[in-house]
Amino acid sequence: MSPRAAKQKPNLAELLRAGRIDEFIALALDMEAVDLADVLSSLDDDERLTAVRALPPEVSSEALAEMPEEEHAEDTLAALEPEQAADIVDEMADDDAADLLQDLDPEEQERILSAVEDRTEVDRLLAYDEESAGGLMTTHVVTVLDAATAGEAIEAIRRQAEEMEGFYQVFVVDGAHHLVGLLPLKDLVTSPPERGVREFMEAPDITVTPDRDQEDVARLMARYNVPSVPVVDAGGMLLGRVTFDDVIDVVEAETTEDLLQFGGVSADEELGGSWAEAVRSRLPWLYVNLLTAFAAASVVLVFSDAIRELKWLAVFMPIIAGMGGNAGTQALAVSVRRIALGQVSAGEEIGIVGKEVVVGLVNGIASALVAGGIGWMAAGPQFGAVVALAMVANLGVAGFAGAFVPLFLERLRIDPAIASSVFVTTFTDMCGFFLLLGMATHFLL
Amino acid sequence: MSPRAAKQKPNLAELLRAGRIDEFIALALDMEAVDLADVLSSLDDDERLTAVRALPPEVSSEALAEMPEEEHAEDTLAALEPEQAADIVDEMADDDAADLLQDLDPEEQERILSAVEDRTEVDRLLAYDEESAGGLMTTHVVTVLDAATAGEAIEAIRRQAEEMEGFYQVFVVDGAHHLVGLLPLKDLVTSPPERGVREFMEAPDITVTPDRDQEDVARLMARYNVPSVPVVDAGGMLLGRVTFDDVIDVVEAETTEDLLQFGGVSADEELGGSWAEAVRSRLPWLYVNLLTAFAAASVVLVFSDAIRELKWLAVFMPIIAGMGGNAGTQALAVSVRRIALGQVSAGEEIGIVGKEVVVGLVNGIASALVAGGIGWMAAGPQFGAVVALAMVANLGVAGFAGAFVPLFLERLRIDPAIASSVFVTTFTDMCGFFLLLGMATHFLL
Repeated sequence: MSPRAAKQKPNLAELLRAGRIDEFIALALDMEAVDLADVLSSLDDDERLTAVRALPPEVSSEALAEMPEEEHAEDTLAALEPEQAADIVDEMADDDAADLLQDLDPEEQERILSAVEDRTEVDRLLAYDEESAGGLMTTHVVTVLDAATAGEAIEAIRRQAEEMEGFYQVFVVDGAHHLVGLLPLKDLVTSPPERGVREFMEAPDITVTPDRDQEDVARLMARYNVPSVPVVDAGGMLLGRVTFDDVIDVVEAETTEDLLQFGGVSADEELGGSWAEAVRSRLPWLYVNLLTAFAAASVVLVFSDAIRELKWLAVFMPIIAGMGGNAGTQALAVSVRRIALGQVSAGEEIGIVGKEVVVGLVNGIASALVAGGIGWMAAGPQFGAVVALAMVANLGVAGFAGAFVPLFLERLRIDPAIASSVFVTTFTDMCGFFLLLGMATHFLL
Repeated sequence: MSPRAAKQKPNLAELLRAGRIDEFIALALDMEAVDLADVLSSLDDDERLTAVRALPPEVSSEALAEMPEEEHAEDTLAALEPEQAADIVDEMADDDAADLLQDLDPEEQERILSAVEDRTEVDRLLAYDEESAGGLMTTHVVTVLDAATAGEAIEAIRRQAEEMEGFYQVFVVDGAHHLVGLLPLKDLVTSPPERGVREFMEAPDITVTPDRDQEDVARLMARYNVPSVPVVDAGGMLLGRVTFDDVIDVVEAETTEDLLQFGGVSADEELGGSWAEAVRSRLPWLYVNLLTAFAAASVVLVFSDAIRELKWLAVFMPIIAGMGGNAGTQALAVSVRRIALGQVSAGEEIGIVGKEVVVGLVNGIASALVAGGIGWMAAGPQFGAVVALAMVANLGVAGFAGAFVPLFLERLRIDPAIASSVFVTTFTDMCGFFLLLGMATHFLL
């Protein structure tokens, strides 16, 4: 940990604001990149630009790559003179460079890249989808020819490893750069120099193609406990590697997205963004919800005579609907998560929906005993019975909708986290109102 | 990937059911542990027991450690004869063994452990909290003395690495087992044998104490991009290491917990559990919700004369309350996630709540224009104005509650994901009913 860095953060920002640039640089050079990135995050746009201009490109490149809000790093890059930006991109790992350049507008991107010394690797990475293995990988890999001896392999690693930040696996390739194996470092360390690498290399547990979705890659790495996974093309040629640290970032980001979407917030709302951004991200969902709320309320309108006759209907109406919404959300949370974890195989859907309907009905009976009892005390046994029946039926419906809606959206290849909760609560609201008011009209009035 | 394994799954289960145990074992020996674990998962309890009894302990131990639902592995272990279970525990990595034994009841645990060859390490791990660095770590580390040369270090690694599954870092310790550095493998590979390890070892980026929360450990590893982090006691003595694959599992598990809790489901509900388990996990929350729903409905009761006089109140009542609930859930999702990611520093709370109130009010005005307009068309300009005012005020309240409730619970050291959504929606329901019905009574009737 870096309590030291935490203490220095205000100092660094103050030094910069006071124009004591030399002292700022001296302290910054002494920090971990990720801690310096936090300092840069805490600055305003102009200050950040001053800091990045003052820092040597090999330092600012790492800090920009580590910044928690990617947008800030992108804006800074775009605001620099193209040559300065290019110097920073030159120093950056190719995957970090591609990540930052990806979201710039095309002219901006081209302006910087045309000043970069060697743009081939970044260009290649930019061609992949940002959320795929190709978008996540670095092309910097340590490779050894399959014809080499342990001694030659060590020599090759020495040459390649110097420029590399951290490497966890040595890949064995044939003359045409096809991946043929992995070289366990412990075996390499302990092999006599004349031993051929073919004798002690291992078959790669897993490989992925560059179009593989990043969530799949994360799940595979966790499943097979590998710190990095080789990316190969359809012909088996080694293109790059994805490492565990990218994958932890992916899992964290997907978690944020899933939770936000579940809460009816656009997945790309920045958590620390301005109120105006938040309004833009959330208002569309509220409008969708307003539409569905009016649809549900139209059921109430149809039965407004019943409500005028029996005031208890207006009191119990939101209870039945609300309990349905909650039970539906419960079923939805479990189903969305099962889908996200890849736990739902084809043919299991009916069983899953069935289980949720049973859970809904049982919970409905348990809730009906309480709510129906109170209804009885309020307005007599018949009213209590109507409340109880409506509760059981609506919670059964909620279980059905909570499981069916996300499974159905998944079948249509729509991310079930996105629109499910609106559909489910609309459904439970309408059914709740209809069941209570309809049965009351039929049986009581 | 293992399409092969996927194809064999039914075969394996069928072989077992047909009593063709030898063929089952022959195929099982050829699989990755994690794929065999999936096969075991697909069996029923008796079949699983038969399979585990038939497999050699060095194979079944790995498969049990990898099983997706830990409970199944625990039940299997408990159902075996103590000697057989002990053979399996002997073969297991100490952290996996501790994970499985942790949840057995104490006598069961003791019965197995007393038959284990060397229980000291497992006993030590069992003493730590399951969700801490100590509960996550393995005590199997590769260490080298700081007085050693590169040649001696390689010799030491050769000796230690044989029994170890995978290792990513070599730790340098002094004579009293205090951690003094890390040995980058690439430097070790490329150093002359007589070079002292002190000359090329690196200072450890981060260390954690065993009581450190597992989510913190995950976040630190992602932040500093390290594949394994050393666990040291308060005196700096090396106790073990936590590796990236444990951490990916932690992040996945925490994601599931957060999403379930957000949906009002107990965090320990097994996603694929029975309907009875699901009822036990969810009914308590529904009862809490029923209580709060009655509290909100009591507001409706107070104003039931107004509803009888103006039927449109019953129609617009759920719209105002529902929109508040949705806006509150949006603010809640963003706030809960910011807290979970450690993005909220002391003193920032007022700014966060302030932003959410502004977002709520702005979204409230946008929603009020539509809802108020429809209210006007339905029941005249005064009614439209009341609807609009209630909408703006309730969405402002929703923004406040959505940010304030989780921040307040966090201050009280209650996990804000747990109870926040019940509080927030109760608050918005009550306020929604009160604002609409109260203003209508005051201004219209």
